[in-house]
Amino acid sequence: MPLFEINLSSTALGIQTALNVVLPISVDQKALSEEHTYSYGSRKFPVLYLLHGASDDYSCWMRWSSIERYANEKGIVVVMPSADLSAYTNMKHGHDYWTYISEELPAFIEATFPVSTKREDTFAAGLSMGGYGAFKLALLKPEKFAAAASLSGALDMADRVRQDRKFDNAFGDHPELDGTENDLLHLVKTSEDQLPRLFQACGTEDFLYEDNLRFKKIAEEYGLDLTYEEEFGDHNWAYWDIKIKRVLEWL
Amino acid sequence: MPLFEINLSSTALGIQTALNVVLPISVDQKALSEEHTYSYGSRKFPVLYLLHGASDDYSCWMRWSSIERYANEKGIVVVMPSADLSAYTNMKHGHDYWTYISEELPAFIEATFPVSTKREDTFAAGLSMGGYGAFKLALLKPEKFAAAASLSGALDMADRVRQDRKFDNAFGDHPELDGTENDLLHLVKTSEDQLPRLFQACGTEDFLYEDNLRFKKIAEEYGLDLTYEEEFGDHNWAYWDIKIKRVLEWL
Amino acid sequence: MPLFEINLSSTALGIQTALNVVLPISVDQKALSEEHTYSYGSRKFPVLYLLHGASDDYSCWMRWSSIERYANEKGIVVVMPSADLSAYTNMKHGHDYWTYISEELPAFIEATFPVSTKREDTFAAGLSMGGYGAFKLALLKPEKFAAAASLSGALDMADRVRQDRKFDNAFGDHPELDGTENDLLHLVKTSEDQLPRLFQACGTEDFLYEDNLRFKKIAEEYGLDLTYEEEFGDHNWAYWDIKIKRVLEWL
Amino acid sequence: MPLFEINLSSTALGIQTALNVVLPISVDQKALSEEHTYSYGSRKFPVLYLLHGASDDYSCWMRWSSIERYANEKGIVVVMPSADLSAYTNMKHGHDYWTYISEELPAFIEATFPVSTKREDTFAAGLSMGGYGAFKLALLKPEKFAAAASLSGALDMADRVRQDRKFDNAFGDHPELDGTENDLLHLVKTSEDQLPRLFQACGTEDFLYEDNLRFKKIAEEYGLDLTYEEEFGDHNWAYWDIKIKRVLEWL
Repeated sequence: MPLFEINLSSTALGIQTALNVVLPISVDQKALSEEHTYSYGSRKFPVLYLLHGASDDYSCWMRWSSIERYANEKGIVVVMPSADLSAYTNMKHGHDYWTYISEELPAFIEATFPVSTKREDTFAAGLSMGGYGAFKLALLKPEKFAAAASLSGALDMADRVRQDRKFDNAFGDHPELDGTENDLLHLVKTSEDQLPRLFQACGTEDFLYEDNLRFKKIAEEYGLDLTYEEEFGDHNWAYWDIKIKRVLEWL
Repeated sequence: MPLFEINLSSTALGIQTALNVVLPISVDQKALSEEHTYSYGSRKFPVLYLLHGASDDYSCWMRWSSIERYANEKGIVVVMPSADLSAYTNMKHGHDYWTYISEELPAFIEATFPVSTKREDTFAAGLSMGGYGAFKLALLKPEKFAAAASLSGALDMADRVRQDRKFDNAFGDHPELDGTENDLLHLVKTSEDQLPRLFQACGTEDFLYEDNLRFKKIAEEYGLDLTYEEEFGDHNWAYWDIKIKRVLEWL
Repeated sequence: MPLFEINLSSTALGIQTALNVVLPISVDQKALSEEHTYSYGSRKFPVLYLLHGASDDYSCWMRWSSIERYANEKGIVVVMPSADLSAYTNMKHGHDYWTYISEELPAFIEATFPVSTKREDTFAAGLSMGGYGAFKLALLKPEKFAAAASLSGALDMADRVRQDRKFDNAFGDHPELDGTENDLLHLVKTSEDQLPRLFQACGTEDFLYEDNLRFKKIAEEYGLDLTYEEEFGDHNWAYWDIKIKRVLEWL
Repeated sequence: MPLFEINLSSTALGIQTALNVVLPISVDQKALSEEHTYSYGSRKFPVLYLLHGASDDYSCWMRWSSIERYANEKGIVVVMPSADLSAYTNMKHGHDYWTYISEELPAFIEATFPVSTKREDTFAAGLSMGGYGAFKLALLKPEKFAAAASLSGALDMADRVRQDRKFDNAFGDHPELDGTENDLLHLVKTSEDQLPRLFQACGTEDFLYEDNLRFKKIAEEYGLDLTYEEEFGDHNWAYWDIKIKRVLEWL
């Protein structure tokens, strides 16, 4: 299961950026042993875009969880980009991370690595700000993603930005996100597409627990295919290391 | 021009190993700017396997030359593996680096990255021990490589191991390499294949200068398509950083 | 908690090698927040040398466990070197990994990073071949290490090499290790020093379980300060990711 | 000469960031060979903070020049941080890169690595936006830096931002920088301190050539200790790879 640490010039961002990618090649370990070869022929792997939270970057999932190990068991490629404090949006003051994550990055990955481009093989997940990003990918690109998972996600962003100015550069000062495409609740209510399956988990001690309950309520009201799990847990990596395994099972 | 630093489990070696790969994607920079995309379609890049010298590893070409920059200008993928003190052989006492470099690594690269598998697009180069390795690939896999380059190469290995015990684990104690497949001079004399084009450069101050003259003499005697360059220069990176640019022009 | 991925020229090995180091600096996070500074003054951190198993390298502890996270909670520096299939010995056929790991590496770490050089702050741990290495450091360098931990360790090496030829290059063909300094049981029996505290854990399903029982018996017979833990578990990273947390608690 | 690739949580930035550091340890190579040790005692190395240009990041100096090699010959530590499109300022809309680069980073480096904290051993250099940053460090922290070098520097920033909106997030929309501490010409005119020695180089084909002439004129008018070099050259890495060697000689 090779790990690729990549330095890349992004056209959408206008700067260099870094990402980690893991390939689950050792699922063919036995074949490899016999043939001394990595030629897995025309096989195309499913791919998970795995997003970090606010204050983290591309390196954190690899460093603070065992994601490579879990991905290998599942047989899935995992792509871990950096997104600054962008909330996975084209920043009001900053870089176009939405374009990078939703367009340029998949194009780069699909052109470079042996990954499937089929909807049924394409997934997103993330924690905190990255949970918001993963559901945004699912709700705005439903034709691209078959499923998405949010762990401790900042799922009610319109409310969040009223309390926390961390995302001012992403959305602008005192942004009104209600009813915009940055408001996941609004997207749930208005989408006319066949939406991806969603997985939502949040610890009961998490400061985002109430935000998660609000999203869950709307998602159920509008009949989304939502798997919801809550348990004692807080906003930390001990929880996320456990739950990301659960996400991979669920996919 | 993305850089990939890769940690890989090699079946041939039986251990984890590391390598660097650069892709010359920015040759399409203009298209990228316009399309926000890395989808270079069905394009397959030519590929250069670039080998390190004794005491170095996969990291040295990237750190001590500007190879990524030169590769980008040329539009070629460069693959830089680690090979310990193996002399690119299946070590008498150690790992099967020949199998790794000549079979498993190309299979991995071709299955993972958008590289051409055509002979006309496949090249090898290296310095010192890696120059020996590059010519070995060319002479033993002439159907795979279109050309190979040696910088300050240890090209008369049969003589070298009589003076230097550095490769004892590769070849065994007091090895007699004359007339074996580890003897490049022998390979030149006996090959019945259409051999790849060769490029050979060595500084006149290099301790391997005489070895290079001996190889050159035989290669010319046997009518190989050899480009030979010598100039004032020693066994160091200042020389190699200059000459690898020349190699890329020549390819 | 910064992560340092290091490429290093080792004099003992005669080649380039790589290692990972994590510093637990964020234990001062509050001070950092207030002072915008990393100047933790004259503070010297305790340090754990954490060794990999056969077929792994420096990268594996970081990739397949959450060691950085656990180290940060504990406030300890963790140093993760590469050692090939050396069994942490000066290889019969290969590099001097014992000199590298037991002398050059600590000298490099102590000269480069803010780590304590006191015995009471210096520890070793490892898994499988690395468990053997960690106990070897403890038993041969008792003046340097205060404690050592073995997870699923190859603790009866004299017996192991009779069944498994993996370490032939380390110890030579059909080596007789009984009664040598590569035989941990012998070291336990003959040491006249004040030995470090030892922690030994092995899953009951592990193929090295019997080896571990033999070491335990001798260690107890000779009155070592040994903490022993066994439970249902096998020779895999799911077990090691759990037990290395336990090791850090125990230190 | 070890290379350290570092992932770090920055308090000033509020996010994870990355940097490269090289140590020139092999100046002691002979001592190392004899003693198998890296214990260079109480030796403290001089240190150069080497800054990237707009659109680049921490990785570019290592990838596109041979800086590690040149630094080793000089016997100097080189620190290469990331600074986004900040112009090395506390961004109007973005992160506090000035605080990070001018305070937190030196504190981290000095607490972590064996570097001198003496003014006479502390230097800055950079290219393009990084040349601006290096001179800003010199002019605003003259008590900290003994010398600074600018290659193809954006040295007349007040004029630059009238033509190029790239730095809007750093300085705000239509910023008036004249006469502020972001205006290097103003700093030259008004500084009352003993200013560091400066080295300024720019190719005659560079789009920043005129900016450089303006800075040179003021610097000479105000009697700064300036070494100025111009020659045929453009805004590219072929030029910077040559000139950074010259900078290290000049330091």
